[in-house]
Amino acid sequence: MAMRVGIIGAGPSGMAQLRAFESARQKGADIPDITCFEKQSDWGGQWNSSWRTGLDASGEAVHSSMYRHLWSNGPKECLEFADYTFDEHFGRPISSYPPREVLFDYISGRVAKSDVRKYVRFNTVARWVSYDEKAEEFTVVVEDLANQKTETHVFDKLVVSVGHFSFPNVPQFDGIDSFPGEVLHAHDFRGAERFAGKDLLLIGSSYSAEDIGMQAHKMGARSVTFSYRSAPMGFDWPETAVERPLVTRFEGRTAHFSDGTTGEFDAVILCTGYLHKYPFLPEELSLKSRNVLYPGNLYKGVAWQDNANLFYLGAQDQYFTFNMFDAQAWFARDVMLGRIELPAEADRAADIQQWLDRQAALPDHDSEADFQTDYVRELISLTDYPEFDLDSVCSLFKQWMRDKEEDILGYRDNIHRSVMTGTMAARHHTRWLNAMDDSLQRYLNGPGQDIDTGNLAVLAQESQLSAK
Amino acid sequence: MAMRVGIIGAGPSGMAQLRAFESARQKGADIPDITCFEKQSDWGGQWNSSWRTGLDASGEAVHSSMYRHLWSNGPKECLEFADYTFDEHFGRPISSYPPREVLFDYISGRVAKSDVRKYVRFNTVARWVSYDEKAEEFTVVVEDLANQKTETHVFDKLVVSVGHFSFPNVPQFDGIDSFPGEVLHAHDFRGAERFAGKDLLLIGSSYSAEDIGMQAHKMGARSVTFSYRSAPMGFDWPETAVERPLVTRFEGRTAHFSDGTTGEFDAVILCTGYLHKYPFLPEELSLKSRNVLYPGNLYKGVAWQDNANLFYLGAQDQYFTFNMFDAQAWFARDVMLGRIELPAEADRAADIQQWLDRQAALPDHDSEADFQTDYVRELISLTDYPEFDLDSVCSLFKQWMRDKEEDILGYRDNIHRSVMTGTMAARHHTRWLNAMDDSLQRYLNGPGQDIDTGNLAVLAQESQLSAK
Repeated sequence: MAMRVGIIGAGPSGMAQLRAFESARQKGADIPDITCFEKQSDWGGQWNSSWRTGLDASGEAVHSSMYRHLWSNGPKECLEFADYTFDEHFGRPISSYPPREVLFDYISGRVAKSDVRKYVRFNTVARWVSYDEKAEEFTVVVEDLANQKTETHVFDKLVVSVGHFSFPNVPQFDGIDSFPGEVLHAHDFRGAERFAGKDLLLIGSSYSAEDIGMQAHKMGARSVTFSYRSAPMGFDWPETAVERPLVTRFEGRTAHFSDGTTGEFDAVILCTGYLHKYPFLPEELSLKSRNVLYPGNLYKGVAWQDNANLFYLGAQDQYFTFNMFDAQAWFARDVMLGRIELPAEADRAADIQQWLDRQAALPDHDSEADFQTDYVRELISLTDYPEFDLDSVCSLFKQWMRDKEEDILGYRDNIHRSVMTGTMAARHHTRWLNAMDDSLQRYLNGPGQDIDTGNLAVLAQESQLSAK
Repeated sequence: MAMRVGIIGAGPSGMAQLRAFESARQKGADIPDITCFEKQSDWGGQWNSSWRTGLDASGEAVHSSMYRHLWSNGPKECLEFADYTFDEHFGRPISSYPPREVLFDYISGRVAKSDVRKYVRFNTVARWVSYDEKAEEFTVVVEDLANQKTETHVFDKLVVSVGHFSFPNVPQFDGIDSFPGEVLHAHDFRGAERFAGKDLLLIGSSYSAEDIGMQAHKMGARSVTFSYRSAPMGFDWPETAVERPLVTRFEGRTAHFSDGTTGEFDAVILCTGYLHKYPFLPEELSLKSRNVLYPGNLYKGVAWQDNANLFYLGAQDQYFTFNMFDAQAWFARDVMLGRIELPAEADRAADIQQWLDRQAALPDHDSEADFQTDYVRELISLTDYPEFDLDSVCSLFKQWMRDKEEDILGYRDNIHRSVMTGTMAARHHTRWLNAMDDSLQRYLNGPGQDIDTGNLAVLAQESQLSAK
């Protein structure tokens, strides 16, 4: 009987696992029987964005945390696939920070080219996994959501690729239950248009707070206040944005901060991060971690230390994304195919500990980028995933961080050179701050395109904003 | 070995099941080993309301659909416990339509008196149930959410009391993904203060739409538009409220209705009902139903036809609530204790069919009330649950429906006589439309209470509104 592999989640990392096997198959290898379960009706994970909040059409937790007008917050040159370049997909240079729809188009092209969609069971949610130590088998109970049918599947290997930016971490604040305005978590944020003219409070000091805050500024928020627990972000904010320490309590629409200041707000967005949550896994198979570059208990960040038949993809905090998922998937594939032999448990533990020790000593963001670069480099060296100039990608991460320090509203207008093809990015036709239409069509065709009346309104708005 | 009973959910119906057993125990009966699992940190189900939306602090689906300023939308005299009256709890007459906190205080008193909290495992979510036909046992895998521990429990009988107003039914509308304002389901509505001065669209024509619409009117919405699929509600709405047929599509903030009219809106609330969803149950144990007075496949609306060891409480649409849950729990208890012998499968099927046939022929709301009255009457006649004048309760339901027809904004100011004690309700000190503080303290102590500065603002607002 062929080896049976189950994959839970058809986002970028689950699809990477499918592509990894398909790549081996195309090179003549025998590959296992593979089934990938995806609770959504299409692949894409975070990139399969939705207007829905909270629960989806089947009553399952909404997966994606993305929103309208989300533009990449890192250079596309850092996430380019080594085996499918932006040049190949678009046939011409594009800018370095494209909007969501453009990036999704790119990764969709990669998936279409590899023809792996056929392995995915859509609208099928993993309900419960158990592991039989003796038989060395996973039993996975799934629900076919469209037909409300329960099915049981048995696998020799299981890959968990559900991501960890889907279950919001929502702390309690005294008095928040009677705050009269809107209160939501960043996970449920879908667009900032409705905050025009409003005073907005964002609790948190990481990517969500920064990006949603500047989205709101772009869409005309009257003021944006960030509240931090440990330290301010310290960017060179526009005049209407300010940072305060942590909220201690709410009283009506007034927030009290720990420095004794207060503010009145129309809405509160909790940018307080996400939970590692795997509701379909029993405790002994379930990763418990904060969002860090190297969660413990995963050999090479991938193989579950307590059960070498279980693999996690993309469980790390991420500088690298798509190409790191690829590197992980190629590694997991080669372990499953027996091309890579796992060292003994003690040796794996020592390897994990080495990475954890290095992680604990990381002094700054630059060294974090170095850390993950070295991690990806090691993974790639172990498989036939195409090598690329990782040091250049790492330099680009550092440049990107400096660019943000310099101009938080303008860094997306910078352009960078592809590490894969050497192609210099094209300068986008509209500055990010003035780009009010994030559609693929407008992105590609620009202000010179044939315009219909719908676009006229957008153009009017953009030129108005440009004139400011 | 004593019989083992598992109960999933500690809302009003789960607590009714615990009280039913406790009542038998106090009368000298041997009762089973009972464990009740509740994913929330306290009992109360819907009544354990929260400011959170979507997912709760543990990343589980938020259970309660209640909101600030929710006042009972039916007379309290219709939901009074036969064995614990409002007079006993409050020691004086109160009004017929109390706010959420007051009703929760009442049912909390009932629970405290019966001392059944000790049976409940809080912060514990049911993950997966399986049934062994041979052993006639349920295996229930639960997760202790606070400690992320997986536990396995085995039961002879299982009671599902998780309700069916928690998983929102959220249909798709063309263009809703680019509606620039807030879009939410009634399940995530927490208060209407933020809709003051706004144009609000509510899609739906049942209790949620009606009540949230009038809440928004009370809180100063500029306009309230209801959109119905089948028929308008037809109440005598205030001038700023209007009914339209179904939305066909959105274009920006404009909604197009099927009668060709359009409207511009600031926010959309989907009052489109709820799903019967039991994510922890395999297909063969899972009730599939719309929200109706008599779901199929449940003998006496309680005992699962395909497996007589499984019971559902409160799975019906509800005129009767608390006392119906009691009647169901007392019935389920007596079946489990062997005091009531279930008829043969075919006889049970015939009984179910009889109710389904009658349900299918119900011509109007009055006859629906009659139908559920007869249902509850039958249940009570089978157990030692204290009898009460069900016909008077039924008349009160009919009166309530007439009162709403007459005055949708004023019906809550009416008072009714208790069926249990004969006590006439007290007229509330403030008309519902002017009552801007729904706290227990203010409800009980009224405008004459000692007031602090917080209350002064409320009083000023109320007297301003009264003067209008």
